[in-house]
Amino acid sequence: MSSESSSTPAAAAAILSEAARVLIVTHENPDGDGIGSALALRHALRARGKEVHCCLTDPCPEKYAFLPGAEVFTTAAPETEPDCAVALDCDGSARLGRLLPAFERAPVTCSIDHHNGLQRFATVNWVDPRRPATALMVYELLRLLCAEIDADIATCLYTGVAADTGFFRFQNTTPEALAVAGELVGLGADPSGIARRSAEAVPLRKALLTGRALASLGQYVEGRVLVGVLDLEDFVATEARPEDTDGIVDQLKQVAGPQIVILIRESEPRRWRVSMRSQEADVSSVCRRFGGGGHALAAGCSLEGPASEVVEQLVDAAAAALSPGGAL
Amino acid sequence: MSSESSSTPAAAAAILSEAARVLIVTHENPDGDGIGSALALRHALRARGKEVHCCLTDPCPEKYAFLPGAEVFTTAAPETEPDCAVALDCDGSARLGRLLPAFERAPVTCSIDHHNGLQRFATVNWVDPRRPATALMVYELLRLLCAEIDADIATCLYTGVAADTGFFRFQNTTPEALAVAGELVGLGADPSGIARRSAEAVPLRKALLTGRALASLGQYVEGRVLVGVLDLEDFVATEARPEDTDGIVDQLKQVAGPQIVILIRESEPRRWRVSMRSQEADVSSVCRRFGGGGHALAAGCSLEGPASEVVEQLVDAAAAALSPGGAL
Repeated sequence: MSSESSSTPAAAAAILSEAARVLIVTHENPDGDGIGSALALRHALRARGKEVHCCLTDPCPEKYAFLPGAEVFTTAAPETEPDCAVALDCDGSARLGRLLPAFERAPVTCSIDHHNGLQRFATVNWVDPRRPATALMVYELLRLLCAEIDADIATCLYTGVAADTGFFRFQNTTPEALAVAGELVGLGADPSGIARRSAEAVPLRKALLTGRALASLGQYVEGRVLVGVLDLEDFVATEARPEDTDGIVDQLKQVAGPQIVILIRESEPRRWRVSMRSQEADVSSVCRRFGGGGHALAAGCSLEGPASEVVEQLVDAAAAALSPGGAL
Repeated sequence: MSSESSSTPAAAAAILSEAARVLIVTHENPDGDGIGSALALRHALRARGKEVHCCLTDPCPEKYAFLPGAEVFTTAAPETEPDCAVALDCDGSARLGRLLPAFERAPVTCSIDHHNGLQRFATVNWVDPRRPATALMVYELLRLLCAEIDADIATCLYTGVAADTGFFRFQNTTPEALAVAGELVGLGADPSGIARRSAEAVPLRKALLTGRALASLGQYVEGRVLVGVLDLEDFVATEARPEDTDGIVDQLKQVAGPQIVILIRESEPRRWRVSMRSQEADVSSVCRRFGGGGHALAAGCSLEGPASEVVEQLVDAAAAALSPGGAL
């Protein structure tokens, strides 16, 4: 990221200070960082007497409905034209989806983002990929604007930081993330309440599906490969949706022993989507053998056939990628 | 806690500065805070040329074996007499178990602890129950001693803070806990590595049992009561042990919706142990109706009969305890 291509927080603060009507948007399928950042900025701008419209492409996820102000999100663009539109946590204009026209109609636009995206689609583009969360940038912005950070704002920002750092368990958990989180708790954010309300509400259908995945686990290659299987009947019986499989393979990583963990799920009869995780072995090379790909420690592919044959092929390929020692 | 009954960090620093041979102990069944605090203090005192002996009543838990210096713990008291013995994270001398005589033989003793215990069993007793972890007190002590906090010490202290705050999810997650954690990451602690390595690796048999508990979940009282059932066949099929049920009921609390969560497990044919959890409703009163008890939000009891009848009795009793609104 060259410094020429990124604006400064001061530039973002300047255009927001001048605006009277602000449109705030975030990316499609909004997450805790986008939602929390948007609401925190809204609270602060409204406290300065500005008219603020918060807009999402999709309804606010249920688990963030507890955030102060979450009820104000609309999925319709505002009727009055804003002076300024702010895109939060968006690495590229395409991520704004159907809100892009409303964003682009504003005479001045601003992008505040922590992703690695190269597209600069706004008037002011403050992009800092070293930051683990956009909420940390909004915190800096509010400090620059001398905004009072009350308990509501602190709650929204803490939720954003916690969401994007996996509640301080991901590798992007920087000293800044923890230090700012500490300040936000001092300002009124409730860390245990936020953890409970935003991270731990699993729909029953997903809990049932996760249960079936865990109960299906089988060990192969002397316990070094662990495989879970979810077939179409599991989805029917639990009324689970395809997206309910999100994160299940990562839960399987908690099992002691294996070097490679595999979850296969049937998307259509005898068509399987495969997720593979490892702590050391290169599973992207395993998945490439089946036309898939990914990262060294997290990869995926698709296969066809009866479950038993698919598992056999995957286990054989995984066994070849195993290092002589080590455990997950 | 009256200030008369507690010494200051300066008093602890003074006696440690004067000692040449230090014995460090922590409580029986040592946890991450005790282990991390002991190793951090050991590293710092050794860097000042002191002879340090770290002693545990029990072997160091496997999940903390990655901590720098964990290999030096012994379960035998030192042969040479220390000038000073330090008890970390011990709320009362009884918690030292069979190490108490060695501790008491030292001419000067020091207790550094964050629990609410009232017993003052050392020469210097620095007790601060407002602190979420003893590791935070050791951090303050090392700052007072002008000790260099290297990556090894930072790793040990971070592990202590994270362990006692449930990786920043418990209600005791103070601004100080997060701020110090941030400083420790800046000094070389690896938050994601520590989270991964100190997380309990789940035995496969427990993962299989957890899966069966999740897959068994049923909703009652319009979704306000959630019940999981583990029968003897589940234990036989998974080869799980009775202790493998530890924590499963708390995992069920992650399901969105219910106000009361119940797990019943068959200990002998048609004899059921019941664990009940709630966020608001008083489940101890529910369990007392069946001869059990516990806390308002976490209680248990035992019942006899076929699973379906036991579930029906429990659900009826739970329904009576439900508040008009609210969710878990």
